[in-house]
Amino acid sequence: MDEFSNDATVIRIRASFAKQGLMTTLGAMLGEIRPGSVEVILPVSRSVSQQHGFVHGGAVSAIADTAAGYSALSLMPAGRGVLTTEFKINLVAPAAGDLIIARGRVVKAGRTLTLVQAEVFADRSGDQKLVALLTATMMSLEDRDDIVD
Amino acid sequence: MDEFSNDATVIRIRASFAKQGLMTTLGAMLGEIRPGSVEVILPVSRSVSQQHGFVHGGAVSAIADTAAGYSALSLMPAGRGVLTTEFKINLVAPAAGDLIIARGRVVKAGRTLTLVQAEVFADRSGDQKLVALLTATMMSLEDRDDIVD
Amino acid sequence: MDEFSNDATVIRIRASFAKQGLMTTLGAMLGEIRPGSVEVILPVSRSVSQQHGFVHGGAVSAIADTAAGYSALSLMPAGRGVLTTEFKINLVAPAAGDLIIARGRVVKAGRTLTLVQAEVFADRSGDQKLVALLTATMMSLEDRDDIVD
Amino acid sequence: MDEFSNDATVIRIRASFAKQGLMTTLGAMLGEIRPGSVEVILPVSRSVSQQHGFVHGGAVSAIADTAAGYSALSLMPAGRGVLTTEFKINLVAPAAGDLIIARGRVVKAGRTLTLVQAEVFADRSGDQKLVALLTATMMSLEDRDDIVD
Repeated sequence: MDEFSNDATVIRIRASFAKQGLMTTLGAMLGEIRPGSVEVILPVSRSVSQQHGFVHGGAVSAIADTAAGYSALSLMPAGRGVLTTEFKINLVAPAAGDLIIARGRVVKAGRTLTLVQAEVFADRSGDQKLVALLTATMMSLEDRDDIVD
Repeated sequence: MDEFSNDATVIRIRASFAKQGLMTTLGAMLGEIRPGSVEVILPVSRSVSQQHGFVHGGAVSAIADTAAGYSALSLMPAGRGVLTTEFKINLVAPAAGDLIIARGRVVKAGRTLTLVQAEVFADRSGDQKLVALLTATMMSLEDRDDIVD
Repeated sequence: MDEFSNDATVIRIRASFAKQGLMTTLGAMLGEIRPGSVEVILPVSRSVSQQHGFVHGGAVSAIADTAAGYSALSLMPAGRGVLTTEFKINLVAPAAGDLIIARGRVVKAGRTLTLVQAEVFADRSGDQKLVALLTATMMSLEDRDDIVD
Repeated sequence: MDEFSNDATVIRIRASFAKQGLMTTLGAMLGEIRPGSVEVILPVSRSVSQQHGFVHGGAVSAIADTAAGYSALSLMPAGRGVLTTEFKINLVAPAAGDLIIARGRVVKAGRTLTLVQAEVFADRSGDQKLVALLTATMMSLEDRDDIVD
């Protein structure tokens, strides 16, 4: 465990992620957490497939949205909560392989709205291929007891 | 069961939906199926939540994308397969209630690309509230043994 | 001139539209103004074309964005200003004809963010065909002397 | 004039751009042209403004869409034509300054569909600030006499 992984942001994001029932249901895990950049990893299985056997665009979107949301949250002060107001995703290749990896990155952090991108890769035996690109608007909420982190 | 629900389109969509591992994992079900319009219903539970307890935007997106995809497929001749090339979703209210209902509707069917919308409602004791709006581009593929329906 | 067209909202939107240098440059005009719904009309000419002779997607987007923005503004109290934070447009058919008509409609008005759609039609001798669909998020600003209406 | 600027792609894009009535109307110019990356530059004036005096989101979108389209075209063989099927733009800061510069970049080139991004910067005395981010799907058409380049 490196120095950074002990810091408050990592703890905050790990605690929040653990509360996401959907991520547990999908079997998704947090990967690297850096200020402004968070990774979410989904092992491929039939339980996240669409009808042709590829990973469902909805599962790809779910981990990309989560990676994007925590990328935004990683730059917000404690006490703030993050909500996705909109996202767009382009699915550029069928998602197939061993792992699907979504890497979020803050493009522009604002007081109320933060623009984030997430690139999604399919990893097959270490070989990574771009399968999707998401852009999302995240809203920062404060003084909301029900929406923190 | 009315006359329409027996027809080939309904059988085709029900068979395809049954192959979507993700829909089974989420607990989602098909609702009404009409030419150009398909409904997908998600019972609300902790297993599809995000960190604040609302239904995860990724789960909302997954059923909206599925409803949109089958709305497009319902107008395609047999032997064709449908893939989502992109979608955008606006999440206009936290998704909370008993059921989340996505209603797809074809806006413009083309030979290669079909534009579809899906409205998503949260249903609480029969009272329905709009929580999201999706627009998606669906691609029709033919002569692909691996991508049918 | 009917009763509604005299009211404060119409005056406010007409005054704001007149300040849009781009609308004058494109030759665009306001059409019907109703609470939550505003129309912008663009006469077709070479001066708004792309390389194949159709109306440029950027011109289609510009009037759709404007129609969407004023649809949102029409529901905001005086003193507020509106800014587009994002939009997505699907261009479903080449834009050709005599007039391009964008019709905005508020989907969900919120305190800070308003979701609006605009359908864009190409009108040829009174025959109208859908050419584009836009969804936009509009932000309401207050207490900003530089951003009013 | 460097070696690259003489090549067939640059000639092709310059000839196509010259046919875009809208670009002339807006006063926009081509900037750098590289394989997979094309720049469009818009001098700021009242003629491209919205109601608060900033550059209109529609004008920003128009040059970003054009930069994106030519970025895609720059990788297509001769005889092909490019059409925008959809784009999404996030407007992250009011567009103000001397020049608005849109820089397209192909993310994934496919046989039928190409995904492109464009970053848009406002330049004030050489100081550049991100004002918008666009992602677009471009369709490649062949054997269409009316849609070439």
